[in-house]
Amino acid sequence: MHPIDPGTDLTETCIEGVSVYRGNLLHVRRDRVRLPDGTESTREYIVHPGAVAMVALLDDGRVVMERQYRYPLGGDLLELPAGKIDPGEEPLVTAKRELLEETGYVASSWALLTTMEPLAAYSSERIHIYLARGLERRVRQLDDGEFLEVFAEPLSALLEGVRSGRITDAKTQIGLFWAEKVLAGDWTGRPA
Amino acid sequence: MHPIDPGTDLTETCIEGVSVYRGNLLHVRRDRVRLPDGTESTREYIVHPGAVAMVALLDDGRVVMERQYRYPLGGDLLELPAGKIDPGEEPLVTAKRELLEETGYVASSWALLTTMEPLAAYSSERIHIYLARGLERRVRQLDDGEFLEVFAEPLSALLEGVRSGRITDAKTQIGLFWAEKVLAGDWTGRPA
Repeated sequence: MHPIDPGTDLTETCIEGVSVYRGNLLHVRRDRVRLPDGTESTREYIVHPGAVAMVALLDDGRVVMERQYRYPLGGDLLELPAGKIDPGEEPLVTAKRELLEETGYVASSWALLTTMEPLAAYSSERIHIYLARGLERRVRQLDDGEFLEVFAEPLSALLEGVRSGRITDAKTQIGLFWAEKVLAGDWTGRPA
Repeated sequence: MHPIDPGTDLTETCIEGVSVYRGNLLHVRRDRVRLPDGTESTREYIVHPGAVAMVALLDDGRVVMERQYRYPLGGDLLELPAGKIDPGEEPLVTAKRELLEETGYVASSWALLTTMEPLAAYSSERIHIYLARGLERRVRQLDDGEFLEVFAEPLSALLEGVRSGRITDAKTQIGLFWAEKVLAGDWTGRPA
């Protein structure tokens, strides 16, 4: 039992650390840390450069979506377009690049909805979720080895998909909930 | 460019695989896979047993929350109570166990809100999010080396925290959005 008073400093400080795995996609670190009570523990986590996801809203009210096979889960997921930030890249630049590459759309209006952490326990990843409007069709430029189906559905149908369990991806649920708030005029995104 | 027709099978099949890291917390695999066009690629990912998170609603309308230092992100996060599923454990059993251990509450009514995937690109983790009502205070039983502050705020204040950027954790944003829908009577959880 560690009863914690409100406002207590819970910071864990690094004593020493090492990269335990560096693959094509994943970089795993293991650090020895000092806990708030002075004892030691170990933290293992993915080092990640961050990512973006885009709620791209067509003029007819439909949202651009992707169907993609997700190997770790063994099945297809319906997801917002998304991608990893390149070293030194501004997240908004990533968002514009990935939206064009994956879906073939450019957008004239961008707003940041939220920046969220998908898995705080073992990843340093942060995902910036944008609302993109004023879409125009260009040519899609998928990376080699990237297979995904692009489709579009009204926001209301996608929210019904969240309710029914058809849409389970975390960044997608969050982006759709946020888009509903913003389009209802209850919340506003930040100009990006 | 791989234009995909609607409904095309995007399944990637395992050719061979190996555990590349097995630590105290993380288990990392690397598999060689066959892509839909017959070529080969590599998939690296975390193998995870799944987790639960709980929107625990007090009779006065406040939701039980935790403040916890998240080492991979280098700061405190405000989160719903949550925990990892033990081998062979039913998710609802995990939810009851973790709510008691971390916050000291037991609940008389449980509903499953959603099952979501926080990071489909590189983790097999699924998180089951429950709504717990009819709370009664017992004694908290934190694990050694677990430091967290428990507090409670009205759902409306927590949703305002999502809007303002004070609450950024993915499972927490999703759980709060879902709770708002269910408490408004628009959506219903599934009895658990």
